[in-house]
Amino acid sequence: MLEKVDLNLSLDKKNYRKRMDELETRLKELQQTIGELNIPVVIAFEGWSSSGKGTMIKRIVNPLDPRQFKVYAMGKLTEEITMRPFLWSYGTKTPARGLITIFDKSWSRGMLPESIFKWRLSEKEKAGYYYDVNAFERQLHDDGTLIVKFFLHISKDEQKNRLKALEKNPATKWRVDDSDKEQNDAYDKLLPIYEDMIHRTNSAESPWSIIEANDLRYAAVKIIEILISRLEAEVENRRAHREPGVETVAPPRVSILSAVKFDETITDEDYKKKLEKLQSHMAELGYALYAKRKAAAIVYEGWDAAGKGGNIKRLTKHIDPRGYEVVPIAAPTPEELSHHYLWRFYNRLPKDGHMAIFDRSWYGRLMVERIEGFCTPREWQRAYSEINDMELHWTNHGLTLFKFWMHIDKDEQLRRFKARQSDPLKQYKITEEDWRNREKWDLYEQAVDEMLFRTNTSHAPWIIIESNDKKLARIKVLETVVDKLSKSLRGAL
Amino acid sequence: MLEKVDLNLSLDKKNYRKRMDELETRLKELQQTIGELNIPVVIAFEGWSSSGKGTMIKRIVNPLDPRQFKVYAMGKLTEEITMRPFLWSYGTKTPARGLITIFDKSWSRGMLPESIFKWRLSEKEKAGYYYDVNAFERQLHDDGTLIVKFFLHISKDEQKNRLKALEKNPATKWRVDDSDKEQNDAYDKLLPIYEDMIHRTNSAESPWSIIEANDLRYAAVKIIEILISRLEAEVENRRAHREPGVETVAPPRVSILSAVKFDETITDEDYKKKLEKLQSHMAELGYALYAKRKAAAIVYEGWDAAGKGGNIKRLTKHIDPRGYEVVPIAAPTPEELSHHYLWRFYNRLPKDGHMAIFDRSWYGRLMVERIEGFCTPREWQRAYSEINDMELHWTNHGLTLFKFWMHIDKDEQLRRFKARQSDPLKQYKITEEDWRNREKWDLYEQAVDEMLFRTNTSHAPWIIIESNDKKLARIKVLETVVDKLSKSLRGAL
Repeated sequence: MLEKVDLNLSLDKKNYRKRMDELETRLKELQQTIGELNIPVVIAFEGWSSSGKGTMIKRIVNPLDPRQFKVYAMGKLTEEITMRPFLWSYGTKTPARGLITIFDKSWSRGMLPESIFKWRLSEKEKAGYYYDVNAFERQLHDDGTLIVKFFLHISKDEQKNRLKALEKNPATKWRVDDSDKEQNDAYDKLLPIYEDMIHRTNSAESPWSIIEANDLRYAAVKIIEILISRLEAEVENRRAHREPGVETVAPPRVSILSAVKFDETITDEDYKKKLEKLQSHMAELGYALYAKRKAAAIVYEGWDAAGKGGNIKRLTKHIDPRGYEVVPIAAPTPEELSHHYLWRFYNRLPKDGHMAIFDRSWYGRLMVERIEGFCTPREWQRAYSEINDMELHWTNHGLTLFKFWMHIDKDEQLRRFKARQSDPLKQYKITEEDWRNREKWDLYEQAVDEMLFRTNTSHAPWIIIESNDKKLARIKVLETVVDKLSKSLRGAL
Repeated sequence: MLEKVDLNLSLDKKNYRKRMDELETRLKELQQTIGELNIPVVIAFEGWSSSGKGTMIKRIVNPLDPRQFKVYAMGKLTEEITMRPFLWSYGTKTPARGLITIFDKSWSRGMLPESIFKWRLSEKEKAGYYYDVNAFERQLHDDGTLIVKFFLHISKDEQKNRLKALEKNPATKWRVDDSDKEQNDAYDKLLPIYEDMIHRTNSAESPWSIIEANDLRYAAVKIIEILISRLEAEVENRRAHREPGVETVAPPRVSILSAVKFDETITDEDYKKKLEKLQSHMAELGYALYAKRKAAAIVYEGWDAAGKGGNIKRLTKHIDPRGYEVVPIAAPTPEELSHHYLWRFYNRLPKDGHMAIFDRSWYGRLMVERIEGFCTPREWQRAYSEINDMELHWTNHGLTLFKFWMHIDKDEQLRRFKARQSDPLKQYKITEEDWRNREKWDLYEQAVDEMLFRTNTSHAPWIIIESNDKKLARIKVLETVVDKLSKSLRGAL
């Protein structure tokens, strides 16, 4: 594919200037339109070193309002980045609706361990990597983001000449380093790897455009033409309100929740004994996570008054507070609403060595947002696979994920609501909204059942905690976390 | 001071548990109260390695609701940190109102170049450093933040024993590194340096508490007692609405704005010639900033319709977009409002090698916020020195700061407003609010005069750009930036 590209295509200065003036005017108009229509746009650049990525980005942003775009150079792997799943740096930088984000090196390669280019990655690893990349693009696309990807292609000789010219000039000498020269030397071996990358991440929704970049004028015109046509198509689409229909998904046949038994209880004595022991074990595991640079995320979901807060307190009691963070998830802010709904969770992803405890989580999409109509049916139906993919990506990085469903029955909830109402110190904990939610118990039950069924994956299974007995629930959570973390740390370096 | 501390103070287990139970109950109540009263609290820990900072933080957070505090370990100097003024890591982490932030190692030492402990910092450098530290604390205090600072003191022998014990245990061995042992060896030389630090950053509003920490039980009780008494005093204060009176500051005697002349103009030919040349120079300077790892911030303030947007476009035209960011400043979000008003600008501080262009800025405090009553008179009066201090801190780090006041006269504004209204493509640029602001021209003029006068410092002077002639204004901004940046880069490494 790349070998057959005609790299002799070029454009003379006069024709270039004339065409460019027309294109810039059109691009400027389109920027205003995508702002009005609230379309988020991601433009990703890949290509050989010195293929002119910086220049091309300059050409694109030239006619744009600088307040409506952001450019990110994603080349360097800082510690901030390597301590997290590689999509973190992208997931936290996706544009708000109506804005444009330009990545100089994309998720398709930017953060990919250099090893893939040195033939050290196994086929299985590559497959997992490209799965994550494609899932990420699909998520953005499904959420309404337009993705435009350019691969800048130059010949081996052209690259060599450009590197030489840069080196010769004292003002640009610093821009060339050893890795650039190594790339030129290995050009022939790298070509098929690039091809493979393009092939495996090419999709109807976010196709690659290969740009013949030996001639920068030709390249700039081609890039802006493609960009304009993609933007126009998207605008037309949006104006026609073309939304694919709602998929119908059969609900699970068996109710998971209705099978939960509440027979087991725990004596106070037994509780006290176990609690102390498990809590000190948790403290040790907190240090071990840090020492072995492993991350963990613990998700608490469950009915109102199921005892999440008290449970979290018991879990964290002895852990060094420098090693964990409790992340309470409330209604999204306007800024959060203007992004992909998983954006705010990427922003809370724990880095290696640390633990994040989510008091409610991304699963809100499948419960309150679904039931209260805060998202469309299509959006929550899509969320099952989006969440599974995100969790897979996180656990692939080495993060251990726990998902607890704190389960109580309807009578127990009523008892707790009433107890809260009659205790002046606890009255603040119960609101009108809690009562309203309670009235929708059956709707929630169905949604939760479906959620537990469809997001119960081997990499991140749900654990149902019978919580009518609060003390038992605390012990069960602690036992589960201590057990699984010990095992996964034993396997770590 | 430190030498005279009695490190033999201790507490037996029984008394400790009894007292601690009382203290924990009280602390829990107080947390709820500071939440209700919206008081932000910062707790900072300093002290010798192995003095028990982690344990003490654990004791404090134990009774607290984990959703209301954050703990930050600030020990490690990552690249993210060293590429910015050292207060950046703290300025971006200060608590929202009603919440508690705990720093394990504070701005008083955490980010201080290790050199101060190795006697390589000059007296002048130290003075500048402590000036920044004290200014930062004063700003937080003035904004209503309670600051509680603990210094954990242990003896040389105790430290040695603790390090040995940690090393002997395979589970904790990794927590001891060479720098800990070096610290123990240099204990006697470090003591006076710590003393000096405590002495120079001790103030009535945020005093140090020295904690005898040879006995951890004694230390924990003392820390929580002090914390409770500080919290109680602050709550009492707040409830009594004790606000110091408004300082009266005499307005400047001379109107700076009324002295601005608009005689000068530029011919189209001259404009075109100069523009091209200056723009390519700017592109080179963008690369030079990156190569020399220097940051720059360019602030645009000015009357509505003074031409900020067009000016920014001309300034950035040829700069590599990966090296700069345009930061539009609009009305603050609820999250921004719940923090210190400079918090959001710390979050936009450009890192070394990069440029940030602020389309409006922190000076909103002294104009729209002052005039529309979005802050109290005391708050905007305080802002003069707060802003001067922040800018000093940034420029001390090596950042070059430009502050442009884009000045047009009242008639010119009217002409531009009318032109916008009659042009369908520009109508979106003019709103009712612009007309309302225009009616307050005189009030704004007075506020701007005062602002230009009081925040015109040698490290960050104001530059008034006569903007009745837009083209001339663009050339003047470009000339100023090119000139000053070239000079400051010539001085850089």
